[in-house]
Amino acid sequence: MTEILKNREYKKEKMKELLKKIHKGEDIEKLKEEFKDLLRSISPLEIPLIEQELVKEGISAREIAKMCDIHVELFREAVAGSEKEEMKDIPSGHPLHTLYEENKEIIKDAEMLNLYASTLVNTKDKKMRKEILGVLKGIANQLRAVGFTHYNREEMLIFPYLERRGITAVPTVLWTKHDEARGMIKQLLEILSKENEMEWEEFVKALKEKAAELSNALVDMVFRENNILYPTLKALLSEGEWVAIKGQEEAIGYYKVKPGDEWKPEAKPLHPYEIDTTLTAEQLLSLPKEVQMALRGQKLEGDKTKVKREGDLELETGYLSPKEINAIFKHLPVDVTFIDKDDRVRFFSGGDRIFTRTPSIIGRPVQLCHPPKSVNIVNRILKAFKEGKKDVAEFWIQMGGKFIYIKYVPVRDENGEYLGTLEITQEVSRIKALEGEKRLLDWRD
Amino acid sequence: MTEILKNREYKKEKMKELLKKIHKGEDIEKLKEEFKDLLRSISPLEIPLIEQELVKEGISAREIAKMCDIHVELFREAVAGSEKEEMKDIPSGHPLHTLYEENKEIIKDAEMLNLYASTLVNTKDKKMRKEILGVLKGIANQLRAVGFTHYNREEMLIFPYLERRGITAVPTVLWTKHDEARGMIKQLLEILSKENEMEWEEFVKALKEKAAELSNALVDMVFRENNILYPTLKALLSEGEWVAIKGQEEAIGYYKVKPGDEWKPEAKPLHPYEIDTTLTAEQLLSLPKEVQMALRGQKLEGDKTKVKREGDLELETGYLSPKEINAIFKHLPVDVTFIDKDDRVRFFSGGDRIFTRTPSIIGRPVQLCHPPKSVNIVNRILKAFKEGKKDVAEFWIQMGGKFIYIKYVPVRDENGEYLGTLEITQEVSRIKALEGEKRLLDWRD
Repeated sequence: MTEILKNREYKKEKMKELLKKIHKGEDIEKLKEEFKDLLRSISPLEIPLIEQELVKEGISAREIAKMCDIHVELFREAVAGSEKEEMKDIPSGHPLHTLYEENKEIIKDAEMLNLYASTLVNTKDKKMRKEILGVLKGIANQLRAVGFTHYNREEMLIFPYLERRGITAVPTVLWTKHDEARGMIKQLLEILSKENEMEWEEFVKALKEKAAELSNALVDMVFRENNILYPTLKALLSEGEWVAIKGQEEAIGYYKVKPGDEWKPEAKPLHPYEIDTTLTAEQLLSLPKEVQMALRGQKLEGDKTKVKREGDLELETGYLSPKEINAIFKHLPVDVTFIDKDDRVRFFSGGDRIFTRTPSIIGRPVQLCHPPKSVNIVNRILKAFKEGKKDVAEFWIQMGGKFIYIKYVPVRDENGEYLGTLEITQEVSRIKALEGEKRLLDWRD
Repeated sequence: MTEILKNREYKKEKMKELLKKIHKGEDIEKLKEEFKDLLRSISPLEIPLIEQELVKEGISAREIAKMCDIHVELFREAVAGSEKEEMKDIPSGHPLHTLYEENKEIIKDAEMLNLYASTLVNTKDKKMRKEILGVLKGIANQLRAVGFTHYNREEMLIFPYLERRGITAVPTVLWTKHDEARGMIKQLLEILSKENEMEWEEFVKALKEKAAELSNALVDMVFRENNILYPTLKALLSEGEWVAIKGQEEAIGYYKVKPGDEWKPEAKPLHPYEIDTTLTAEQLLSLPKEVQMALRGQKLEGDKTKVKREGDLELETGYLSPKEINAIFKHLPVDVTFIDKDDRVRFFSGGDRIFTRTPSIIGRPVQLCHPPKSVNIVNRILKAFKEGKKDVAEFWIQMGGKFIYIKYVPVRDENGEYLGTLEITQEVSRIKALEGEKRLLDWRD
């Protein structure tokens, strides 16, 4: 027996002991203390292997499943020593705190996934198999959210701050890894959907392999983030940058975590395009070794592009020149006409339109822009909008092979105050004919 | 025999004489002179009656049809004495000149319609019936354009100048009459489509009645316009106002007329919201009697609303405050993201979005906003846009019951110069489910 296997044998025995004690209901805090060294010595990738052996030895999958939560909890706390260290001076509610917290959840779910998939292999009972499959589907579906919350927040809110400072390699590598994990989750879900199309043995083998691969990838990412990305952010980002990130987090969402509220920043939000991109010596030296290595020999140039140009209009979500605004409206696939709160035409989009609009109607009361017989209806719609009783009035007509969709919507400000009404007209026959899917990667020149 | 009928008997004889001479090929100018008094004495509504009688007396429908063009020409010039008077000092190309010219065409078509419909009643030959029906369908379809060119220009380009001066009754009455004529054209087309569903006698009776009704309505409108509306415009509108009207005419289009180019205005265009709305005594006194009557006893108040407010952005087609621009983009049924010519995200629309966008991406190169593996495709699309080789790249995906349509379009200025690219995302399952029609008049509170 090799040294490794002997070692695993020992760990397995201790694990069994631990699990049994948990099962008996012994105090968790005391157990944590007692098995601290054991837990620290087990890598996250070893656990499922040991558990699998326990299953073989007759401990029922259900039994292990029950203990799973507690076990993962213990395991996580044990191995996450460095993480704990990192987190100790970050108050809850701080975006970095939230990211660390999410990583705990991700590790837990990755472990659970692996454990259940391994357990399934050794489960003969059909009812039990069904139960475990149900749990696996639940976890796999849940894990999809990692992609559109935790990873997405990093890609959209955080990476821009590194890119702006000239550090583009780290985000690119991480994003590539994120996408690999996303792909594996998709593949896992695909395998899970083929339960009745495949031989059981073949199915369960594919399932277990994919679960292990995904679990590895997720845990690997947690380690990369906790040890490279987050320390880098800690070294570089100012309070204002974190305030800006915090302000946008909610729109994307979190993975199984609700941020706390200990963090009370005072800085004003600083968006990526507003930051000073020069790296100080102090910042450079406090970067993780891996990042220092990556940057060595590279000319680090910050992105100095000014976002607000001379004459630009500052909008809530960007900067546009009047020329761009005109052109954007002209190129929209919908024609719009806007009447203000006093029912006067203020604006219409230019370009090719379904129903012609001419500057002569600017300032004209909308009631005078319609055939006299429909004025009454126009007024009733506007009344319903102003009173907040309706939020849309839609119509559709067909003429000369065109299918025209016309929508009126009240425009309100952030306080719900009525600012006017928008008429939106769209030729939708192309849309109505679309079938199936055509994705970005299907594009051909 | 009553006086009227005796008179008509006389006119009919003279008409017959005229038509025969036209048929023989006699010189039109000489005939015009010879029959001037006759033509002046015949009202436009009498002609079809006389022609119908001629048909009864054995002159073939085809014969009359051939003579129709020349006849209408002669008739029109004869009765249009006052119009000629009005037009004599208006150069070709002037919007008023164009309107008068169109009215000549409208009268001609109205007459033709009536003539052919009356002729059809007396036609026994099936081949001939088919031929005449073909002509009638052609005329009726052509007449639809009166609604969306001649009438539409008046409603959209001209009426605002009267409304702004407080004269709202005249536009409202005329628009109501326009809509009546539009309705009759629609009804006529409906009858024409029922040739094979109805008894011939019933069909031809309905057709003749509707044609006569429509013909009357069209001619009546020409008289109202030539005698009331146009003289009013002549009395009130300044050169700058006509210049503005002229600049927008083309977008709406003309009825069978191509404006000439004698008119060489020098004034700057004046939109309705830019004019001085006070009426001078001279203007008031040169208004047609009918309008003077209509305005008597009424307090004439011009519309003084300022269109451009403090802080408004002046766009090509209207005025909007930054607050309104933000709100409009939020309320659009499409989500947009705009990257400038240097591939940097400049703006995205706020509000509820399908794919979240956060301010952190403003100023970010678009290549860094995508998963690394799709960057190559993004670049190829942008290259094709910049080189002018493509004008759209579209994709559609389905997820969780949503059907999402994604479109990329290059945004160019009026000289075709590339300004950037717009990403447009829209959830279209509602649109895909629309069927049939729902019109404004179907709206219920």
